[in-house]
Amino acid sequence: MTYRAPVPDIVFTMRHVAGLDRAVADGVYGDLSTDLAETILEEAGRFANDVIAPLNREGDKHGVVLKDGVVTTAPGWKEAYKGWTEAGWNALPGPVEYGGQGLPTLLNSACVEMWNAASMAFGIGPVLTMGAIEALVQHGSEDLKSRYLEKLVSGEWTATMNLTEPHAGSDLAALRSRAEPAGDGTYRVTGQKIFITYGEHDLTDNIIHLVLARLPDAPAGTRGISLFLVPKFLPDGTRNDVRCHSIEHKLGIHASPTCTMIFGDNGGAVGWLVGEENRGLNCMFTMMNNARLAVGLQGVAIAERAYQQALGYANERKQGRAIGAVEGMSSIAVHPDVQRNLLTMKALTAAARAICYMTAEAIDRAYLEEDPARRKKAHERASLLTPVAKAFSTDIGMEVASIGVQVHGGMGFIEETGAAQHFRDARIAPIYEGTNGIQAIDLVTRKLPLSGGEAVRTQIAAMRATVARLLKESTPAFGMTAPRLRDTIESLDRATSHLLQSLSSNAQGEALAGATPYLRLFALAQGGGALAEMALAANAQAAGGDTDPAHAGRIALCRFFAENIAVGAKGLEETVMSGAGFLHDATLALAS
Amino acid sequence: MTYRAPVPDIVFTMRHVAGLDRAVADGVYGDLSTDLAETILEEAGRFANDVIAPLNREGDKHGVVLKDGVVTTAPGWKEAYKGWTEAGWNALPGPVEYGGQGLPTLLNSACVEMWNAASMAFGIGPVLTMGAIEALVQHGSEDLKSRYLEKLVSGEWTATMNLTEPHAGSDLAALRSRAEPAGDGTYRVTGQKIFITYGEHDLTDNIIHLVLARLPDAPAGTRGISLFLVPKFLPDGTRNDVRCHSIEHKLGIHASPTCTMIFGDNGGAVGWLVGEENRGLNCMFTMMNNARLAVGLQGVAIAERAYQQALGYANERKQGRAIGAVEGMSSIAVHPDVQRNLLTMKALTAAARAICYMTAEAIDRAYLEEDPARRKKAHERASLLTPVAKAFSTDIGMEVASIGVQVHGGMGFIEETGAAQHFRDARIAPIYEGTNGIQAIDLVTRKLPLSGGEAVRTQIAAMRATVARLLKESTPAFGMTAPRLRDTIESLDRATSHLLQSLSSNAQGEALAGATPYLRLFALAQGGGALAEMALAANAQAAGGDTDPAHAGRIALCRFFAENIAVGAKGLEETVMSGAGFLHDATLALAS
Repeated sequence: MTYRAPVPDIVFTMRHVAGLDRAVADGVYGDLSTDLAETILEEAGRFANDVIAPLNREGDKHGVVLKDGVVTTAPGWKEAYKGWTEAGWNALPGPVEYGGQGLPTLLNSACVEMWNAASMAFGIGPVLTMGAIEALVQHGSEDLKSRYLEKLVSGEWTATMNLTEPHAGSDLAALRSRAEPAGDGTYRVTGQKIFITYGEHDLTDNIIHLVLARLPDAPAGTRGISLFLVPKFLPDGTRNDVRCHSIEHKLGIHASPTCTMIFGDNGGAVGWLVGEENRGLNCMFTMMNNARLAVGLQGVAIAERAYQQALGYANERKQGRAIGAVEGMSSIAVHPDVQRNLLTMKALTAAARAICYMTAEAIDRAYLEEDPARRKKAHERASLLTPVAKAFSTDIGMEVASIGVQVHGGMGFIEETGAAQHFRDARIAPIYEGTNGIQAIDLVTRKLPLSGGEAVRTQIAAMRATVARLLKESTPAFGMTAPRLRDTIESLDRATSHLLQSLSSNAQGEALAGATPYLRLFALAQGGGALAEMALAANAQAAGGDTDPAHAGRIALCRFFAENIAVGAKGLEETVMSGAGFLHDATLALAS
Repeated sequence: MTYRAPVPDIVFTMRHVAGLDRAVADGVYGDLSTDLAETILEEAGRFANDVIAPLNREGDKHGVVLKDGVVTTAPGWKEAYKGWTEAGWNALPGPVEYGGQGLPTLLNSACVEMWNAASMAFGIGPVLTMGAIEALVQHGSEDLKSRYLEKLVSGEWTATMNLTEPHAGSDLAALRSRAEPAGDGTYRVTGQKIFITYGEHDLTDNIIHLVLARLPDAPAGTRGISLFLVPKFLPDGTRNDVRCHSIEHKLGIHASPTCTMIFGDNGGAVGWLVGEENRGLNCMFTMMNNARLAVGLQGVAIAERAYQQALGYANERKQGRAIGAVEGMSSIAVHPDVQRNLLTMKALTAAARAICYMTAEAIDRAYLEEDPARRKKAHERASLLTPVAKAFSTDIGMEVASIGVQVHGGMGFIEETGAAQHFRDARIAPIYEGTNGIQAIDLVTRKLPLSGGEAVRTQIAAMRATVARLLKESTPAFGMTAPRLRDTIESLDRATSHLLQSLSSNAQGEALAGATPYLRLFALAQGGGALAEMALAANAQAAGGDTDPAHAGRIALCRFFAENIAVGAKGLEETVMSGAGFLHDATLALAS
């Protein structure tokens, strides 16, 4: 079973939830029209289907090979990457002045979803290059920009993010890599970095490492970290003092090399400072915010692919007899419990996609709006939604991939089927680019307080407006959608007030203890609101005479989400409200 | 990180939830005392820790090898199996007249948990042997019993269950394997069976296959299936016409051979009928019910092992600073979000263990009670609880193993760490021995109606009695435990009434659509009630002057479950109550 990019779903989500039409009408996206956007997405979908998707299984089986410091990717990968960059896909969101097409993050996000659905191990590489481009554009010197941006934008070279060290993962304050000024404007970087995605590979002639390290007199902690650009090959063509020491044997994304990198074993790797001294984390966050949305999109992507595979199997596999059927076996896709599984997969995927695209549109407006007040609002919306997009989408990526295995029955446990690969691949996304626990803490402790709580209140008000429209709908197909989503949003509202109150009264433990269930609650309300927007749009189109059966399907999907998934909100609210009391004897409970 | 059998937790659960003390006092368990039970469990724990657990990682890496029809297990496995049978562990629950120790299912269930926690791939083999013993004891001829039972009870030989064929998995009506009478009282069996666990291996000299097949004039469907015993080696020592054609390349439990078996390629495998003609499914269900509880115990087992590994890592790994700490890094086990993860793991494991042990005790009483009315009640309780024990425990086995990966951060995704193996191994248990969807349908459509709903009503009444005791507790450490569990049980009660009503009005779709969320709801209520029983017992012991800190830990764990997990009940109730309406346009939603 291979992948078919769901371009109609993608376009519908962009237009009716993520505000593509409105952004185009507002002039935020310049010359871009919705028609052009659709054409680009169809083209991207073809590339994902035809060129990347067929690599996925082979890449999983073959993995990557490290020999004498050289990493060889799986057969066909080098050619596919070359074709992908030559077709201009890497350059799509890049700055025009460096050869990019300057297209919106929203449009690129849909493409990122498709590359990753076709193959997560392929898709993750360019995510890091894009983050590095962003960091250089915002913080790099003119010299570094002119030397590196063009080739990074085209994809002729790739980039990496070198943060983690054995004793410094979620806690970067502990990092030990060092950089000494060489006196000629360059630095000598030394240290060991682990879990470096595409740290070494054979897809391109050069690799540009962005590396966090400490200057000699830097203060301790996170305020003494600087960012350096360390190329594999120096501008004069000589090899820099950086090498891949080993690659990891991982649960999934086997085709993506995860490297331990050694900088400066022979006197120090030559590097250039990016941004100001000791402000490296600031620069790195530019990369990471971008990457967090992209990882969220990986969650959507693997969910979509797992769903397509499960649906295909369920339609073909015959076991048992449908209710009311007289003889013969029915396809398992007609059995209610299997339908519940498939609808759960599709509804979670659609909700996560909507949240990711909404985040992308907010990021676009945060850059592109001319009015500073609107720019600030968009920036806060993007800040609020980013941890939700990352954590919820990657959590459901795993859940959906797991249901996908279940739908296959015994066949799901056999590697040749492919469902198990999705289950393995999906498992990394809740971990990297900041674990989902870190995302939840970010949401609650840093994002809820934005503008004194106004950012989150505005978001909730928008959800309520959607429900107000739903409550006016009399179409029976909506079932209990309106009351269930209303309850979900009211649960979110109460939980939000409780946490804002806790934060303002310095009850840090209360906020930290409730962070993970709160993030899920937020996503259920936001995702439900988004599916409702699509259902309302579909209903309006159907009322207008459009006979596309997909419209009834969108209403049914929203109803399923409201009646079967969003209803988890009440329990999550109660968890947040019960507070941190459970932590009191936690140590005893864990010790016993 | 290896495994340490949690004998104190196991014994406490057996005594204070599963009614070991009461059963001993009632004389149901003959000579067995609680002290003797504890001694046996400690001994089993030592064997699991010292002999089986060290095989687990090596077995995963090495897997099994098929060459020329011979399957070779991983290094050390043959010796470990031999030591295990020689120590008498296979014989523990076996009938005394065939060399078994005749000990209760309850006691053996705790042992099964430990073998599987030490290694799921090791533990699954004897589960099948035990099922075959059960089937032979109940349905086999005296001839077959005397020829095979002694060696199966000792474990000198193992057994298999041959049900699945490529087109007959959940739907056994479709199976095609055939058996022809040979005229001498034996049969010639032909056909292909897939997914046969330990279908071929080198642990023992003989393997006894129990095979479902059709007689020549058998009716179509499930009423035309008979059960046959087909040994690998015939009584005269010649090799039977059965061979392993291939082994599967699986996601997990690599050390357990999963075989495609070919019967009768050279004229027919010699087999003997077990039970009556065309009543094979009946006999097979004897094996399967036993195996379902055992697979549920696998879920508990993998959860326990994943929890131990995550807790060990969290205590050692230092990142970030605890709230209130002044300097240095703290172990991640003190961070609230990590504590939430660890408590979720432990609470789900403890709840699933309690449900499995309750099921085991009910199975024991269904055999051992002298009074027919009590026997019937116990049988119905066992019937009701078995699908919950299987499905809930294996679902949480996956969930807990997944959280275990998450607690490890990036290290969790690296195979050498071991957390990923648990995640892979755990994935099979919700699938085999009847998928969890099938379990839910069994619970709702066959088990709820037992004695006109009396069986489930009795169970709910017992949960309510526990809550009534909780409501009288004034110990502040219980927090919101009583009200949260009360709400959970009332949700279960309403959902039960709704489903019983649907079944009696023939609304089959309604029952099928709600089955999976109902099973989870049942488990939250039952599991919460069980943890409350343990917390109440702990509280009473503490009040009596026992200063074991584990008592406070048990109360905290119950509180965590009530405030953070059981609260999901309301949403599940709403899902069941919303009914099957969402199915109406399901096909359109899935097609769009």
